[in-house]
Amino acid sequence: MSYFVDYLECPKCGKTYSAENIVQLCSCGAPLLVRYNLKLLKKSISKNDLKERLPSLWRYREFLPIKEEQNIVSLGEGMTPLLLLNTLGPRVGMKNLYLKDEGIIPTGTFKARGAAVGASKAKELGVKTLAMPTNGNAGGAWAAYSARAGMKAYIVMPEDAPLITRNECAIAGAELYLVKGLISDAGKIVARAVQKHGWFDASTLKEPYRIEGKKTMGLEIAEQFGWKVPDVILYPTGGGVGIIGIYKGLRELQEIGWIGDKMPRLVSVQASGCAPIVKAWEEGKSESDFWKNSQTIAFGINVPKAIGDFLVLEAINKTAGCAVAVDDHDILHAQAQLAANEGIFTCPEGAATLAAAVRLEKDGWIKQDEEVLLLNTGAGLKYPDTVDIKVPVLEPDDNL
Amino acid sequence: MSYFVDYLECPKCGKTYSAENIVQLCSCGAPLLVRYNLKLLKKSISKNDLKERLPSLWRYREFLPIKEEQNIVSLGEGMTPLLLLNTLGPRVGMKNLYLKDEGIIPTGTFKARGAAVGASKAKELGVKTLAMPTNGNAGGAWAAYSARAGMKAYIVMPEDAPLITRNECAIAGAELYLVKGLISDAGKIVARAVQKHGWFDASTLKEPYRIEGKKTMGLEIAEQFGWKVPDVILYPTGGGVGIIGIYKGLRELQEIGWIGDKMPRLVSVQASGCAPIVKAWEEGKSESDFWKNSQTIAFGINVPKAIGDFLVLEAINKTAGCAVAVDDHDILHAQAQLAANEGIFTCPEGAATLAAAVRLEKDGWIKQDEEVLLLNTGAGLKYPDTVDIKVPVLEPDDNL
Repeated sequence: MSYFVDYLECPKCGKTYSAENIVQLCSCGAPLLVRYNLKLLKKSISKNDLKERLPSLWRYREFLPIKEEQNIVSLGEGMTPLLLLNTLGPRVGMKNLYLKDEGIIPTGTFKARGAAVGASKAKELGVKTLAMPTNGNAGGAWAAYSARAGMKAYIVMPEDAPLITRNECAIAGAELYLVKGLISDAGKIVARAVQKHGWFDASTLKEPYRIEGKKTMGLEIAEQFGWKVPDVILYPTGGGVGIIGIYKGLRELQEIGWIGDKMPRLVSVQASGCAPIVKAWEEGKSESDFWKNSQTIAFGINVPKAIGDFLVLEAINKTAGCAVAVDDHDILHAQAQLAANEGIFTCPEGAATLAAAVRLEKDGWIKQDEEVLLLNTGAGLKYPDTVDIKVPVLEPDDNL
Repeated sequence: MSYFVDYLECPKCGKTYSAENIVQLCSCGAPLLVRYNLKLLKKSISKNDLKERLPSLWRYREFLPIKEEQNIVSLGEGMTPLLLLNTLGPRVGMKNLYLKDEGIIPTGTFKARGAAVGASKAKELGVKTLAMPTNGNAGGAWAAYSARAGMKAYIVMPEDAPLITRNECAIAGAELYLVKGLISDAGKIVARAVQKHGWFDASTLKEPYRIEGKKTMGLEIAEQFGWKVPDVILYPTGGGVGIIGIYKGLRELQEIGWIGDKMPRLVSVQASGCAPIVKAWEEGKSESDFWKNSQTIAFGINVPKAIGDFLVLEAINKTAGCAVAVDDHDILHAQAQLAANEGIFTCPEGAATLAAAVRLEKDGWIKQDEEVLLLNTGAGLKYPDTVDIKVPVLEPDDNL
């Protein structure tokens, strides 16, 4: 017995739904969260049991919403490396600076976690066709997992999304469309299409299961830190599912007593050119406003208005965290620092967390000896344009 | 105690060397192999001990040539996913078709293994500056691990090498040069430079430690198959270190009794446009000839003459394996099959192994119920040009 889902719950109005059927949003328009019978779950698994399990996110099977083993769609995702930055950390004033590298995962970004669990549950619920808007990486991930699950995927992404993500979708057999606009425009096209064709809507937080995949980052962080938590976690925030997921995962671990009362201070990092969460947090609001004319090289966090913004703000506030916006220039500098000092080629979104940590340390918000964790959400390999190089070309007879 | 290196040995002339100093090739010109005191090693570790260890190649610490823990340079590499292809396998006549995905590793290819162990040992030996020729991916890997180790890396690659690998080298702070020619031309430039400047030569098999990193693929395969081995392993062969490493690792496991007498039949897969090993194997030779005017889209296996060719041929022959050349057209078809059926976006080199397996199954060399393992040596993400797509572009008001 490894299935402990109780029901789906709206975090806004409290309404509950059965998890036996396909449900998308709550009738009030808010996203739904999966609730488990944690008392039963606690009795069925111990930390020690994990040692015998494979290093993928499915080691936390009891915390995930899949009933039947045969519905698990996996490409080996999860248990990404936790790296101590022992050269760069001291150089930027943080002795215990860590990075969790979500680039080392199928499709090269953390989106694989949401897609693995989301596609598995969609398969279990009998979905044959799904559709979603994407800034690129989620599309690449859902295309891959849909292919492995035998489901059809319709994917709509902005023209400016990273080129390689088009290839990922196309080669996996997805129906891919570009739109002259932002992810919000792609979202509207998908909304009309799912309405018309009766497809499953796999948009961010419009189904309750993607977040369960992201949640496993929180479970892994706790396990990798020896069932403790770091003092601060910095996360690049677009749709916000990563930070919401980590928060949900850690809360569930607290409830079953696997970690103590201490929570990490969660920091939402955005780009100065698209910082709706930062603005809302600074103004003490519980929801964000649509950010007009958004622009940043960190394409994955170019999300002008996130449907789960209120959950992100709640996670920040309940953990005494904060929200920080950083300039593209500082993001590129941080990306180069991580590569040159530690050999880690991060995506710009991941690099943004270093830029934010450096700022917070200078401001005294982060103390020198605190354990600080940067989440690098994807591989720099997917963003060739962020590196500007000139290389000398030699003839075979030339010398170095 | 976890260091069991006895000495370095030339597999060609039998001469031995101390492992305490920097040694490159044997005086006879052949590559050197690391020999361990396997009797002592066997007493110091059990299969059960591994369960408590992290899912990286350093779990096999006793089988690796690093003395001091502090010299280990790691980005979390190893324990890549083993995936059963339960949709595609039956479709191509193989019920037990597996793929080990070396794309899920730092820098996105199996080259990370050689670079991790090679750079660690170079650091331990006091190396400050190294140089190497590369078809791209090894350069990206060594640039990253050299950065993390605090060593300077000079890297020379053909102009035609995958673009993203230039970025990897540059952002990690390596000194990068392109050459109008092949990897063999780059190799000559490096050979002159190390001679002139006294740098460490990190070229394929010109130092004995890279192969130790690659060897861990063999150890992982055995552990992941429950300390058994599959019937057939297909490996794309350029420099050949991967297949030599797997063979060496499995032999060491046999010697300490962790696996039985059975060895997998090792298959060396090359591209029709550059197939020196296949030609030598077909002609019953123990070494290969330089392949003139070599050409293939599978850039990583465009190696006209490998210094370790005789070791590859020995591994094939001693395991009753074979060597197979496949056309670029079949490689691209196989790449699309893997992505569309299983969601795995492989590099062309990895896809070549599927094309070869399909051929061998049709020829009756592989039986339907045999366990067959494809080694995908890298992520398709690094090869955007292998996917040719046309995508419809929508206006925001358009419908699907």
